[in-house]
Amino acid sequence: MSDDIRPHEIAVALPDRTDAGVYFIGRIRTPWKTRDDCPRRVDPDGPICRIEIDPRWAEALRGLEAPAEVQVLYWMHQARRDLVVQAPRRRGVIAGTFALRSPVRPNPIASSMVALVGVDGATVLVRGMDCVDGTPLIDLKPAPSKAGALAHS
Amino acid sequence: MSDDIRPHEIAVALPDRTDAGVYFIGRIRTPWKTRDDCPRRVDPDGPICRIEIDPRWAEALRGLEAPAEVQVLYWMHQARRDLVVQAPRRRGVIAGTFALRSPVRPNPIASSMVALVGVDGATVLVRGMDCVDGTPLIDLKPAPSKAGALAHS
Repeated sequence: MSDDIRPHEIAVALPDRTDAGVYFIGRIRTPWKTRDDCPRRVDPDGPICRIEIDPRWAEALRGLEAPAEVQVLYWMHQARRDLVVQAPRRRGVIAGTFALRSPVRPNPIASSMVALVGVDGATVLVRGMDCVDGTPLIDLKPAPSKAGALAHS
Repeated sequence: MSDDIRPHEIAVALPDRTDAGVYFIGRIRTPWKTRDDCPRRVDPDGPICRIEIDPRWAEALRGLEAPAEVQVLYWMHQARRDLVVQAPRRRGVIAGTFALRSPVRPNPIASSMVALVGVDGATVLVRGMDCVDGTPLIDLKPAPSKAGALAHS
């Protein structure tokens, strides 16, 4: 059972309720069907992946033009949320969740900097993703240093 | 009214419900009491700010040691969520929300890379924040390139 706790791992009781809600604003399509299929390291020369934006939000893409570096936030919907200390299988370490970039965390939000290859209607083409096919998108924004340049639409 | 729509801005109807919930796992204490007080640009030499982690999650700090660069995700609780095209007051541009790093976005999640200055119990000291005092914390993790180094606790 991949969700069992390993030796040295520590789980806490989750709060009774959440404090705010997120909208899934699109889906990320990748070639990887399971977590085990995903690349262990982000590959900037990896395959082009499609981020399909929900039509409601499509107009928010105005002014986003390749080439650019963009930050993608997504929800790691398969991850448990209650571990504070982890012993990741692929690494010989025991560490607190905030000292790891593991998907297992109180709020399973991943952040990736990826290369924007193009925008086609409500679909965004990027290179450098590493998540499972169908992962919910929660945000898309210019990489920090390029916010000024990208805003000139 | 700071929440009014400006000329050229476009709002959409928000979905009826959210798709997932976030926990506020701590609070960020800064010298800035309002959004107008906040620095316009992140200053790596700015004041030391305190991130107060909820006791439930404190053990997740194990292995996080200064000096290091850490990524802080926080919830911009004062921002509206329904604009897809914006005309930010401080800039002479009109752009889609995904081409801006404005706090106004479907999921008001900000991401900052900051310098970890120290960890004192459940309090994390950092330099380089730019948010309002009391902003809810939603995640803390090592900067991408340093995940390996930090994990050795």
